Amino acid sequence: MTEFIPPGTRFHALPSPFPCKRGGALHGARVAYETWGALDADAGNAILIVTGLSPDAHAAANEANPAPGWWEAMIGPGKPIDTDRWFVVCVNSLGSCKGSTGPASINPASGELYRLDFPELSIEDGARAAVDVVRALGVEQLACVIGNSMGGMTALAVLLLHPGIARSHINISGSAQALPFSIAIRSLQREAIRLDPRWNGGHYDNEAYPESGMRMARKLGVITYRSALEWDGRFGRVRLDSDQADDDPFGLEFQVESYLEGHARRFVRFFDPNCYLYLSRSMDWFDLAEYGDGDVLAGLASIRVDKALAIGANTDILFPVQQQQQVADGLRAGGADARFIGLESPQGHDAFLVDFERFGPAVRGFLDEL
Amino acid sequence: MTEFIPPGTRFHALPSPFPCKRGGALHGARVAYETWGALDADAGNAILIVTGLSPDAHAAANEANPAPGWWEAMIGPGKPIDTDRWFVVCVNSLGSCKGSTGPASINPASGELYRLDFPELSIEDGARAAVDVVRALGVEQLACVIGNSMGGMTALAVLLLHPGIARSHINISGSAQALPFSIAIRSLQREAIRLDPRWNGGHYDNEAYPESGMRMARKLGVITYRSALEWDGRFGRVRLDSDQADDDPFGLEFQVESYLEGHARRFVRFFDPNCYLYLSRSMDWFDLAEYGDGDVLAGLASIRVDKALAIGANTDILFPVQQQQQVADGLRAGGADARFIGLESPQGHDAFLVDFERFGPAVRGFLDEL
Repeated sequence: MTEFIPPGTRFHALPSPFPCKRGGALHGARVAYETWGALDADAGNAILIVTGLSPDAHAAANEANPAPGWWEAMIGPGKPIDTDRWFVVCVNSLGSCKGSTGPASINPASGELYRLDFPELSIEDGARAAVDVVRALGVEQLACVIGNSMGGMTALAVLLLHPGIARSHINISGSAQALPFSIAIRSLQREAIRLDPRWNGGHYDNEAYPESGMRMARKLGVITYRSALEWDGRFGRVRLDSDQADDDPFGLEFQVESYLEGHARRFVRFFDPNCYLYLSRSMDWFDLAEYGDGDVLAGLASIRVDKALAIGANTDILFPVQQQQQVADGLRAGGADARFIGLESPQGHDAFLVDFERFGPAVRGFLDEL
Repeated sequence: MTEFIPPGTRFHALPSPFPCKRGGALHGARVAYETWGALDADAGNAILIVTGLSPDAHAAANEANPAPGWWEAMIGPGKPIDTDRWFVVCVNSLGSCKGSTGPASINPASGELYRLDFPELSIEDGARAAVDVVRALGVEQLACVIGNSMGGMTALAVLLLHPGIARSHINISGSAQALPFSIAIRSLQREAIRLDPRWNGGHYDNEAYPESGMRMARKLGVITYRSALEWDGRFGRVRLDSDQADDDPFGLEFQVESYLEGHARRFVRFFDPNCYLYLSRSMDWFDLAEYGDGDVLAGLASIRVDKALAIGANTDILFPVQQQQQVADGLRAGGADARFIGLESPQGHDAFLVDFERFGPAVRGFLDEL
């Protein structure tokens, strides 16, 4: 479809071919990334950030792009991820449509978009691609790898597949494996897209576009990204003003419906549906138990890292805090000095994107100790 | 489209016209119901059961229909709702497609199906219709009105609109008002149906039927009816056998996906989409605060009933137990001897349909004290 690449994005060419975990390989693929701060002479102050499903690499303003990024409050001089001290790299996930090669990119074998000819994508592929960026920047060992949400999975795969790549790790609202409630939600999001006749087996364009499916997928996402508690306080049963409400007998009536509608509108045409399907499915597949003889804690314990912090929001229903507790427990069993913090954040899974009062000090405190 | 009426269903003709709360009136409407046990000479042993969105009136086997009902474990001789003692009436909700008049019924004014010409349906309309059935059966005062889920709303409306109609009340996984998380879920279910081109503004038939929309709505329902905890234990990350799995690259792979698929298949063609829209929306509108000057507790406190029990499952995300706690608190403020029990049931909102070990004794204990 279209790729959505922020200005100032930098690109790293992956080795070609770049083999994928589940088979197939990418040729001439690239990873989009951005950086903040300066790398020390001994290249010891680098932090890698791997993201959730939808963000681009523009996590914060920088010289190449002064627009605020999606984690602006967290990254910069004096901020929790202090760029006066750290050299920060954020990569756009492999398989995304925001600069890294994905299903919305040209397949050099055909000259056409990959669409569903893109190889089956795994979290592990994204992890290896991210590490390749970091090494190309002259970093042999990261001070820390930080992963949010899906990025929490990617970060664990980074550590697992590249022993010694990082001295520390912050896992934010992530998990070591997908569990059935989250699989069910994501499966339903993908089904909404696939059921839209305009998805057309992946062969849509800007005119015939699976807008209804993407709208459903996004709204369902937003429902599971936040929490009932937050919405009780934020929306209650407040109705829309009559000039905002819909004439449609089943149209928008409550503020919460309009909120979902706004989120859908800002997403639907700005993320490629096939990329969404690939990235979403990669999360369902991810399971560190594969590396621990069927035992997820053993898989985690096979990871070597000195220090780790796993944090999340107590109201998260998509990546519940028990999963961050498990990450900390497993890494500790592998010898790490690992802590878990469950924050009393009302904003659910998305809390790390909005509740900087709670997530900021937790991240800053951990990094200050390094 | 089609109505789905169990054999042996009985019908009560509502007064004609039957005015609706939000305007309009039904002409020649009826309510489907079934009964169990025998009414005492003084008509003092009657229990009314009002249901969730989808059940019919066949809550349990009886002489007219020996097939097991949807609450078979709860209703019968010696069962928690003991038909050796109680005369039990279960009504199919007004607006349903299972015998009571609804959008899938013939509009006598046109000779065609009502479809979206059905008046805007409120929970209060269903409550008044249910009371009309009870009175026609010779019952002036119920021993108890029991409502599950949406029926918990209906039961509160029964008590509010008909002071003195019941001496006691059991509210199971119900609430006194819809809150934004539940509104968002139901709004999305309705949107899935409305976005299906075959819904066609309500003008579908069995050939051109909004199957995709109904499938999405049902799967989303099932996700919110159960709990993540239950699914972790029940499905974990177990894959389908290769002969059950799909060839479709994004098709069914995990057991939890197949479970949702099975639920959708058993529902999609067996519930009318327009009826679904009407009943779903009536829940969003329901708010006892309307009867308490904007204060839901005051609305509850305006209800007169001697004894009440509000119960639910701690894992319910659709009607969270705080809402049953609120029902008990509000009724107590109105003078009732009201108790709340939050059960440690893993099955979420649906627990009352499956966890008879916990719900059975709670209901039996309350009724035994009457």
